[in-house]
Amino acid sequence: MTPDLTLHYAPDNASLCVRLLLAEMDVPCRAVLVNRAKQAQKSDAYLRINPNGLIPTLETPNGPIYETAAILLWLADRSPGRVFPAPHDAQRGTALSQLMWLSNTLHPALRMLFYPEKYMPTDPDGLRRQTRQRLTTLFAQLNDRWDTVQCPVLACYLAPMLRWSALYGGDAAWFDLSKFPVLMAFAKSFETQRKVHDVCALEGLGPTVFSDPHLPNPPIGSAT
Amino acid sequence: MTPDLTLHYAPDNASLCVRLLLAEMDVPCRAVLVNRAKQAQKSDAYLRINPNGLIPTLETPNGPIYETAAILLWLADRSPGRVFPAPHDAQRGTALSQLMWLSNTLHPALRMLFYPEKYMPTDPDGLRRQTRQRLTTLFAQLNDRWDTVQCPVLACYLAPMLRWSALYGGDAAWFDLSKFPVLMAFAKSFETQRKVHDVCALEGLGPTVFSDPHLPNPPIGSAT
Repeated sequence: MTPDLTLHYAPDNASLCVRLLLAEMDVPCRAVLVNRAKQAQKSDAYLRINPNGLIPTLETPNGPIYETAAILLWLADRSPGRVFPAPHDAQRGTALSQLMWLSNTLHPALRMLFYPEKYMPTDPDGLRRQTRQRLTTLFAQLNDRWDTVQCPVLACYLAPMLRWSALYGGDAAWFDLSKFPVLMAFAKSFETQRKVHDVCALEGLGPTVFSDPHLPNPPIGSAT
Repeated sequence: MTPDLTLHYAPDNASLCVRLLLAEMDVPCRAVLVNRAKQAQKSDAYLRINPNGLIPTLETPNGPIYETAAILLWLADRSPGRVFPAPHDAQRGTALSQLMWLSNTLHPALRMLFYPEKYMPTDPDGLRRQTRQRLTTLFAQLNDRWDTVQCPVLACYLAPMLRWSALYGGDAAWFDLSKFPVLMAFAKSFETQRKVHDVCALEGLGPTVFSDPHLPNPPIGSAT
């Protein structure tokens, strides 16, 4: 049977969060590569399904969904209570608070780390330095309130962000996951899960994907 | 009957989005002022309910919820389909995409406009200038895809952001809502609703609250 979902992805992009959750939920999904090397995410065809021109987009029978947190939550609510507290579950509010923080605070800070020129073209290096300091504070705050065992939606969103922090913020030395022992324990535990391992292998992400990452060597496509 | 919800608010803060939605839903809620002039949102007592030290926080029988989008979505899902598409509604995915974008793209850009020194202490004025340009692009994109009549969750989130853009980004001249005719029509229509008017009066927000705003004159507390 042909899956009714299609994920537009690029290796080691935010689509990774969605692929991890799809695997955890055993939801079949067609994966279509977005050619980042050719900026295909800014093409007319892609902008028709995602006007923000970002990866990922999930095409569904009811139209495209974009923004990572929106896709994760939409998928989660297809099987209420399985990978995220269901509506009306007592834990829902806390989990939503955490999900929104990952989406509106941590993830945007990472974008400023990776693409400082989009925010401060006159001094991208300066903004990157400031953002590293800010991120260090954010990770310390998160370390204080994270559970090593988390619901899958939050786990699938955070783990890639730990990886990217080490790989895509210029000089890697700024980021030391061992300073955040709860997050390190989470990364080590998460990357040993078989389904997680299998998804990461598909994108050529290498060993110790989240706890001590290396630049990817994807079989197809490119991360940047 | 005592309401089972308590909103920690400050006038003309992000709590306004929540108050507007509570009024739209006719949900009773106790409002507790956060004394911003004394930085009460960073006090130990407040940080115990919201470790991010931001306004708003909604206290519920199941614990506190924070991050504006999390509170809005949690409230909406108490009455499925009334102010936001219910889970399993065909429109849910699109609406989540829009909500997440407001939360993780537009709202963070506004924070950089209001508090550039938190992101770029070495050149806050430069970052504010760049952020104004970026926001102008974001509002133009939104103008192209916004419906003048929107579901209440999205309306209650966007309308205050239009207001704040005109008031709290330094020199107000950078922002001209009339350049975004769909958003202007939305703002004018929204502010004429009786429930919206009543909430805005509570916080002393003045006339033409969203389409042509003036600095507030709150009966209690302060916006900054």
